[in-house]
Amino acid sequence: MEKKKRADLLDRLTEYCGGESYPFHMPGHKRNPGSLSLSEDVSEHAPGTATDRLACLYGIDITEISGFDDLNHASGILKEAEERAAKAYGSEETHFLVNGSTAGILAAISTVAVNRASGPVADGLRVDHEGKEESAGQRHPVLLIARNCHRSVYHAAILNRLDLRYVLPEYDTAFGIPGRITPEAVEEALKDSIAKNDRIVGVLITSPTYEGIISDIRVISKLTHAYGLPLIVDEAHGAHFGFAKGFPENAVRLGADLVIHSAHKTLPAPTQTALIHVNGERINRGILRKFLRIYQTSSPSYPLMAGLDRAVETAAFPDYPGFSKILRSRSRIESEISDLNRIKICKYNEPGKLLFRVEPGTGRKGRPFSGRELFECLRDRYRIEMEMASGQCVLGILTGSDTEEGVKRLILALSGIDRELEEGPDEHGGPDKETPGGPDKETPGEPGHGCPALSGFRLPETVIPLYEAFALPETFVPVEDASGRIAGDFLFPYPPGVPMAVPGERIPEKLVSELIPLLDAGYDIRGIEEGKVAVLLRQ
Amino acid sequence: MEKKKRADLLDRLTEYCGGESYPFHMPGHKRNPGSLSLSEDVSEHAPGTATDRLACLYGIDITEISGFDDLNHASGILKEAEERAAKAYGSEETHFLVNGSTAGILAAISTVAVNRASGPVADGLRVDHEGKEESAGQRHPVLLIARNCHRSVYHAAILNRLDLRYVLPEYDTAFGIPGRITPEAVEEALKDSIAKNDRIVGVLITSPTYEGIISDIRVISKLTHAYGLPLIVDEAHGAHFGFAKGFPENAVRLGADLVIHSAHKTLPAPTQTALIHVNGERINRGILRKFLRIYQTSSPSYPLMAGLDRAVETAAFPDYPGFSKILRSRSRIESEISDLNRIKICKYNEPGKLLFRVEPGTGRKGRPFSGRELFECLRDRYRIEMEMASGQCVLGILTGSDTEEGVKRLILALSGIDRELEEGPDEHGGPDKETPGGPDKETPGEPGHGCPALSGFRLPETVIPLYEAFALPETFVPVEDASGRIAGDFLFPYPPGVPMAVPGERIPEKLVSELIPLLDAGYDIRGIEEGKVAVLLRQ
Repeated sequence: MEKKKRADLLDRLTEYCGGESYPFHMPGHKRNPGSLSLSEDVSEHAPGTATDRLACLYGIDITEISGFDDLNHASGILKEAEERAAKAYGSEETHFLVNGSTAGILAAISTVAVNRASGPVADGLRVDHEGKEESAGQRHPVLLIARNCHRSVYHAAILNRLDLRYVLPEYDTAFGIPGRITPEAVEEALKDSIAKNDRIVGVLITSPTYEGIISDIRVISKLTHAYGLPLIVDEAHGAHFGFAKGFPENAVRLGADLVIHSAHKTLPAPTQTALIHVNGERINRGILRKFLRIYQTSSPSYPLMAGLDRAVETAAFPDYPGFSKILRSRSRIESEISDLNRIKICKYNEPGKLLFRVEPGTGRKGRPFSGRELFECLRDRYRIEMEMASGQCVLGILTGSDTEEGVKRLILALSGIDRELEEGPDEHGGPDKETPGGPDKETPGEPGHGCPALSGFRLPETVIPLYEAFALPETFVPVEDASGRIAGDFLFPYPPGVPMAVPGERIPEKLVSELIPLLDAGYDIRGIEEGKVAVLLRQ
Repeated sequence: MEKKKRADLLDRLTEYCGGESYPFHMPGHKRNPGSLSLSEDVSEHAPGTATDRLACLYGIDITEISGFDDLNHASGILKEAEERAAKAYGSEETHFLVNGSTAGILAAISTVAVNRASGPVADGLRVDHEGKEESAGQRHPVLLIARNCHRSVYHAAILNRLDLRYVLPEYDTAFGIPGRITPEAVEEALKDSIAKNDRIVGVLITSPTYEGIISDIRVISKLTHAYGLPLIVDEAHGAHFGFAKGFPENAVRLGADLVIHSAHKTLPAPTQTALIHVNGERINRGILRKFLRIYQTSSPSYPLMAGLDRAVETAAFPDYPGFSKILRSRSRIESEISDLNRIKICKYNEPGKLLFRVEPGTGRKGRPFSGRELFECLRDRYRIEMEMASGQCVLGILTGSDTEEGVKRLILALSGIDRELEEGPDEHGGPDKETPGGPDKETPGEPGHGCPALSGFRLPETVIPLYEAFALPETFVPVEDASGRIAGDFLFPYPPGVPMAVPGERIPEKLVSELIPLLDAGYDIRGIEEGKVAVLLRQ
């Protein structure tokens, strides 16, 4: 295989740190492998040991010394790395994020909020930051979002005092998950909002979803632009898009104005690294850069940035075998489990997301088996850790870094579980056999267990704007008593964190009646602690 | 040396990742050491190589799988780690930060802003988030800050629409740096602000400063509390305080309500890791937790958190030799350079900060030599990388991870340079000899070069509130033409980033006349690009 041709950030770090330079600067560990030692035992630092892991990280962990640029005012090697990423995704300007997609979402929404607010200032019409026009009517700034977006979007609305209008995704009844956002739904929501005399600052949708469902960004972006609005696409789960045949095109090339990618989700990048891309004339890039400086640490981690740089470079490398590996593995999994009776795979999501559904039992011994049980069975019996369980489903992520052995193990595990579901447990304890202690006792409140998306979801009524409700005094009531109260916190299944109710919304009776069995089944619902829901004191 | 007794986060990660579990979850690298390979050459992954460094990091980089808790709703092993940190610093509640002290500062200030705003709501008086009281007079929310605080403080004021009132630090003429904040100055500023009918939400000061100057937190905190206000201490540079004799007590134990520590600055923690501590009844902790969720990624890095956990554990370990090592090295440096003629060390800052001053030449061959030249001479000729140069000074950080060899090298380097400054250059090219290409050509615009704190600093006039000016249309004018214009961006030397002017302030003529020679000398002043300053279009 051809090798990459130029020194990247990782090469530069390794070269510098392997040199003779002695650091009287931050970080405090001074790249000294012994700095974490609580023992003088040399074996503590042997390769693969705990302290060795950190020592490796520390060995390239520097601060912004000469020659290593400054992420918040990039002009040297970090700017070059960002330009490489821009080229890889086809964007005009790309920024590295070390505070996750969260930082990108906050900066993107803050920018469009100010964008629209500051426009009229230049035209002589005074609009202050929170968007109350002084010389116009009561048109409040509004962001139009897909309801199934990440909570950071709601957080940005709080910080920028934006009212939210929602587009509901389609509901996928087969898998019990949010489906795509249709252009028609976006247009309808835009028209409704305009009819309300809203001053809309932008549109934000999430595509792909956590489960790999894609919306038609090309059409939605044309539509949004026709209304004179910028489109932000939270493509956090699609950082691997647009590099190879067989994968969807990325939202940057499909016309979105701002696109956020979580590099760590699907590329070989370290957790917490992400990218934001900006294109076209609808976004004030100076303001965007200012907000990125606000929402990100002034001491970004070089190992994180070097991993991000290398990961993007890897994905964009012409000879990178990862994408064809994903397609091959996906085909193999689809084909080899095609004759299973109780476990089916979703075939219409993007190739990197493996969404399995457990079918209701049909055989003589068939008994109900949930996504959660499948998740736990894979983990506890086969040592396969999946991404999420939800209703009848289990989600896995397939990337270019998966091994053939891992894929084979998954296929064998699914086949084995399917057989046992049909035939009853084998002598080693099948899915019918209770895990000692019971899974519910072991794992309630722990991540890894999403909750089924609620079918027939209807938007709760907004009683108090989110940005006000967020900080109002709250109290905790038993779930049974929450119906009709105003939510004091976000109420969402985790992962993925799509809110069922947000602060300021009246909790519908239907929601409560659906929540109770989910809680009984041990699902982790954020906003509920020990069976109690945060509601506002005010009723 | 006694060993630590229990498994910490790093141990748990190493154990889990060394097990058999196969990940079909994030991050996308799947802990696969080959995932970044652009070559099938095995030697690329040999110990110490670039890809091996990342592979080590990736080897313990997991997501929030079962058993590993969730930083944003910590209830398991991350909560335990936070509780260990709370115990180490003597706080009632401590949170891990993976977005640097920046996240802590933003959350702390946002909390006190809402704190005070929401209080009256409970009492039936409506105050909205940005603090405009509807049923009271025109009392705008105000934060009282030390002028020499980090730009994240100013950023928090923008996000929360707070007006700022300033306390000026004393000016240290010997070293040309900001000195301590006196309780008298704080009280005077409080009285002034109250006389203006400000609605003050809190007080924030930075101690220690970048250069290690300490203010009297005990007295300032009593004073602030006497006015019924919370005190936030940005103790970013003092994460090592309070653990050992010979070091200042930490601000948590001295009575501050919120304290922020940058763990990576002085402890053996990875860059970008920090802590926030909260004590007492003046802070709404529920609101604080909500803001921490807002300002931090929902995918925090486990290696960063594990390094933070281990670093705090190390510092708090009874047998940790690091602090006595700092004191010994400090004494040794002070003593061994005590007879140098041209290089002096500041003796009244905290032990971990080495602040050197180059004296004006007095010998026959003595010629002017700046802090910046000393910095570059140390770097280029002795391979010693210092933290910052500023005016006649150079700053270094001394931690428990420094080696005897490093300290010895610094002493030898300083002695050699001093001798040459007195006697003229030796045959290898002393400080009098030009570096090829000239240092100014090599390094302008690069970090590592602070600028002298301006003496006789007078606060510029605020024409437009920061939060409004921040997003107003700007233009760029030559420095010479900036006098009298309204600043459109932060104007600050980097590092450390203490602003000379902030957006909305009128740029004084004196500032311009001081800026020009600094720019000519090649100092890096943020807010100035290619000799041009961002000013508002509005005059």
